[in-house]
Amino acid sequence: MTTTREISRSRIFGGQQLRFAHRSSVLDCAMTFGVYLPPQAEYEAVPALYWLSGLTCTDENFVVKAGAQRLASELGLAIVCPDTSPRGTDLPGEHDDWDFGSGAGFYINATEAPWSAHYNMYDYVTRELPALVEAKLPLTDKRSVSGHSMGGHGALICALKDPQRYLSASAFAPICHPSESPWGIKAFSHYLGDDRNAWREWDATQLVSSVGTQLPILIDQGTADEFLGEELKPGNFEQACIGTHHPLEVRMQGGYDHSYYFIASFIDDHLRYHARALGLVVVQPNSGLQANTG
Amino acid sequence: MTTTREISRSRIFGGQQLRFAHRSSVLDCAMTFGVYLPPQAEYEAVPALYWLSGLTCTDENFVVKAGAQRLASELGLAIVCPDTSPRGTDLPGEHDDWDFGSGAGFYINATEAPWSAHYNMYDYVTRELPALVEAKLPLTDKRSVSGHSMGGHGALICALKDPQRYLSASAFAPICHPSESPWGIKAFSHYLGDDRNAWREWDATQLVSSVGTQLPILIDQGTADEFLGEELKPGNFEQACIGTHHPLEVRMQGGYDHSYYFIASFIDDHLRYHARALGLVVVQPNSGLQANTG
Repeated sequence: MTTTREISRSRIFGGQQLRFAHRSSVLDCAMTFGVYLPPQAEYEAVPALYWLSGLTCTDENFVVKAGAQRLASELGLAIVCPDTSPRGTDLPGEHDDWDFGSGAGFYINATEAPWSAHYNMYDYVTRELPALVEAKLPLTDKRSVSGHSMGGHGALICALKDPQRYLSASAFAPICHPSESPWGIKAFSHYLGDDRNAWREWDATQLVSSVGTQLPILIDQGTADEFLGEELKPGNFEQACIGTHHPLEVRMQGGYDHSYYFIASFIDDHLRYHARALGLVVVQPNSGLQANTG
Repeated sequence: MTTTREISRSRIFGGQQLRFAHRSSVLDCAMTFGVYLPPQAEYEAVPALYWLSGLTCTDENFVVKAGAQRLASELGLAIVCPDTSPRGTDLPGEHDDWDFGSGAGFYINATEAPWSAHYNMYDYVTRELPALVEAKLPLTDKRSVSGHSMGGHGALICALKDPQRYLSASAFAPICHPSESPWGIKAFSHYLGDDRNAWREWDATQLVSSVGTQLPILIDQGTADEFLGEELKPGNFEQACIGTHHPLEVRMQGGYDHSYYFIASFIDDHLRYHARALGLVVVQPNSGLQANTG
């Protein structure tokens, strides 16, 4: 904890956008992450949304592009943004592809060498990082989780695997069924090996049938998303949720693509959805969505 | 006009973020620019804010980082974002420094060789680009102008040199007195030569004393801006405005730096300020500022 170093600090919407560097024990490497602290954090501990980014992103993309700080400052909501993979390691082939290795940790715990020595992003984003920021910064242990694409997959598996850690979950254009998507198959084959039984616990569409939890999930998906049919497959997840009576709302947003322009357009709906679940006062709700706070 | 090519189009907040490539005649090179069209532009021509970016930026920084599309879509305001210099030329030393040459056109018309063959950004942003977008896209000839840092300087000189073209003007952390700032002196020496009399018509603090126009100007400036004292000098401009009774409001924003986090925090105030001047309905004003619409 004492080695966590503040890299930068900028005032934004009355709060502070912070960036930190630290050494992660579960990843065994140096990492960076971002935290937005709303103005309310000057006086009291605030709940936090954990945002998991997509392929090729770092901890900075959401911070710079999503425009989330404006409403987060009104709601009194912190936003924690981890990086998308271990960094500074040089495993064989780690930096060759944009959709595998660095920038593509898939928020799972790898079991295959050499990846298993570092690629434990699930433990990092659900355990190590929350413990660190909740000890170091004025954050409560009330958490929500969301993310985009690969990070949407991450948010779904976090919510399904460990729903006691989160009060609400949502995703933008998530990879819903990685065992059936080229991105997911490539990543899981390397990180988890060829036995597809080992993939089940990291695949939201398969997980939802085996878990007993009922944390409602909100998904926004653009209809003009170039990855919709081959990589994302929200219909598969929806079918699985229907089969197991898992609460889910999928909003198909007409004409939106896979970019941050899509995320920016709907992030406020998600922030209000999470704020309600986290017990914050939502002055101007523009959505009828109700998250389960139990 | 017929050679203007659409590079990309993404839906955002119900409108469209567009990017174009074209060949500029006044710059004699290929250029790119961005246009945000709000949803209202599907049915009628809308007024436009011209945004001039700062040193090292392209036409994309504001589009991606400022978060302006959310309120622009409510107001029915288009936003036109030119690049910051000619591109694709290879003049001697043009790409050596981040604060001069490419990415640093300073929105003036150069008179010195070899710059004068291309570096005519003033004519580009005030004449050629408006004529192009108003002919090609559903934009009216009602215009406002704003910008950041070098682009804030650009917005000030556009408003002071040709106030009939704009209904309102504002700036974020503008270089107010380039003849007395290291950035300005370096650029003006190369683009305009060593005779400082030729600099006067491109220096807002000097211009304001010699023009008879009274287009009100709004400036936001962060107090933690690392360039405030040496490069920006808003006090010099304020003194000149007081001397000539030019309407000006300078808001010193406590703790904000020079980054896009600062711009994002206050862009909504500026959009409402311009929208009022442009005759748009501003449903939820949060500022008492009134621009002169005459």
